[in-house]
Amino acid sequence: MTNSTGHGGAGTDLGFPAVWLRDNCPCHECRDQVNGQKLFRITDLPGELAVANVRETADTVTVTFSPDSHLAVFSRVWLAAQGSICKGDGRTERDKQLWRAADLKDALPVTRWTSYLSDDTERLRTLHEVAGRGFAIVQSTPTREHTVLEVARTFGYVRETNYGELFDVRVEMAPSNLAFTGLAIGPHTDNPYRDPVPTMQLLHCLSNAVEGGESGFVDGFMAAAVLRDENPAAFDLLRRTPVPFVWSDAHTVLRAERPLIETDPTGQVRCVRFNNRSMQALQLPGADLIAFYEAYRAFARLIE
Amino acid sequence: MTNSTGHGGAGTDLGFPAVWLRDNCPCHECRDQVNGQKLFRITDLPGELAVANVRETADTVTVTFSPDSHLAVFSRVWLAAQGSICKGDGRTERDKQLWRAADLKDALPVTRWTSYLSDDTERLRTLHEVAGRGFAIVQSTPTREHTVLEVARTFGYVRETNYGELFDVRVEMAPSNLAFTGLAIGPHTDNPYRDPVPTMQLLHCLSNAVEGGESGFVDGFMAAAVLRDENPAAFDLLRRTPVPFVWSDAHTVLRAERPLIETDPTGQVRCVRFNNRSMQALQLPGADLIAFYEAYRAFARLIE
Repeated sequence: MTNSTGHGGAGTDLGFPAVWLRDNCPCHECRDQVNGQKLFRITDLPGELAVANVRETADTVTVTFSPDSHLAVFSRVWLAAQGSICKGDGRTERDKQLWRAADLKDALPVTRWTSYLSDDTERLRTLHEVAGRGFAIVQSTPTREHTVLEVARTFGYVRETNYGELFDVRVEMAPSNLAFTGLAIGPHTDNPYRDPVPTMQLLHCLSNAVEGGESGFVDGFMAAAVLRDENPAAFDLLRRTPVPFVWSDAHTVLRAERPLIETDPTGQVRCVRFNNRSMQALQLPGADLIAFYEAYRAFARLIE
Repeated sequence: MTNSTGHGGAGTDLGFPAVWLRDNCPCHECRDQVNGQKLFRITDLPGELAVANVRETADTVTVTFSPDSHLAVFSRVWLAAQGSICKGDGRTERDKQLWRAADLKDALPVTRWTSYLSDDTERLRTLHEVAGRGFAIVQSTPTREHTVLEVARTFGYVRETNYGELFDVRVEMAPSNLAFTGLAIGPHTDNPYRDPVPTMQLLHCLSNAVEGGESGFVDGFMAAAVLRDENPAAFDLLRRTPVPFVWSDAHTVLRAERPLIETDPTGQVRCVRFNNRSMQALQLPGADLIAFYEAYRAFARLIE
């Protein structure tokens, strides 16, 4: 048995301060036992919380708080799982498997539509590839229109936009978008002018009447990581400079101003925007413009 | 007439470096004349771009670039509109009208459904209020189910999620969410465990069988701005600390790890997440936890 006293939120020998322990109390007064949500506001807790007493058994640690004698019973297993590092939400470079083309030479993330549909393990493996590598290829999907929506619905929800639920890429005579032309388009991220940007995109080739038309993939997170290694000043500049992106037609104007490399507060890459087509005139003092373009071109060379 | 020479991307007397001018060339080779998108990659431009010559007329400025003698004709009006300050995309505190309750005492953003629907000016005014103040109240909407979707479609697209297209708030016996209980819920932002978070939310009261049930609004951007004034260290800590939020039921696990106050790279507040119910145990060293909770409680006191 251990007795310990917290002093105005100071650490106990459990290694956690009183306010953290109390905010995570699992009792039925503090937390809905069905949905796990907390039942109190943070301001409902006493201002001068302290640990008055700690009692331990083989499986549990019971904490009594002052000033209100509230009791929290923590499982040892849960407490032991609490470390000093945030687990993350899987969306930054830390939780991805960054790649260069050579890394995927014999390990392209590929599946077939029929096995993806019928085999849970195969579907799970494919979705892990999407989360970790940023993409996967589903072969032999039916070349029926709207099949792409069917694929999307196997793992998520389709976000309707001004383009509708899907965006038909086709060659047009008076194209409102370069996607509707036969022009080769270099590596880019789509819809940087949209906020939020697309979480994920699905491309489905229904028919190709011409030579070419291949799609290529580049790992933008890897390019950002390499830029940080080779040219940290350029990385930092692209991270700190909001860039305006715009798209418009007769009915819609979309505008977002975000950096090319977006990092989380700990500096981890979380998002890359790269699309010269819709990037607008940057508004910065002249010397800053020169530095930005040097960094932008260095990043572009890595990507291309 | 002015002649000037740029040196390897250095500024010209136009005040803009050669690479910026070239990237913004409006000619038909550089830019699609219908959709305005650029037709080249940034890496397509010569590395050693310079301004070889500048010719001016009353309305235009014509720039000749070396080494490739490319010609760009800018309108003076367009050049004059290019300043040294980014215009922003309307989503940070800079472009909002932050408020305290007293500010809205005689200026609550209110409209009526019939005038909102029939009067373009009234609809525009209401949507400006939503963009600037963060909310507007549409009175006398029909109390038919799904009317809320009809309202949403007057200005945007409904984002389907695991909750469906809409989320029915009703009192349940075994609630999977605190929203389904009769409990008072303090000010909060919804779905902080979702990434992207909802851009905008619509609440529609169809029937209320009990006393109470009022909705309240708080300007989270104002609370963040006040915190920055009163306690810059606390503001900075909340801006720099990713916080895990989780929601789950039998079918879905949603997890996002984001700071309570999200700023853009220039430090402007862009997003506030505030929801103790779904905030998970924070993983930080003990001393950092104490500092975090002090900042969190200071922010919460301002909000509440």
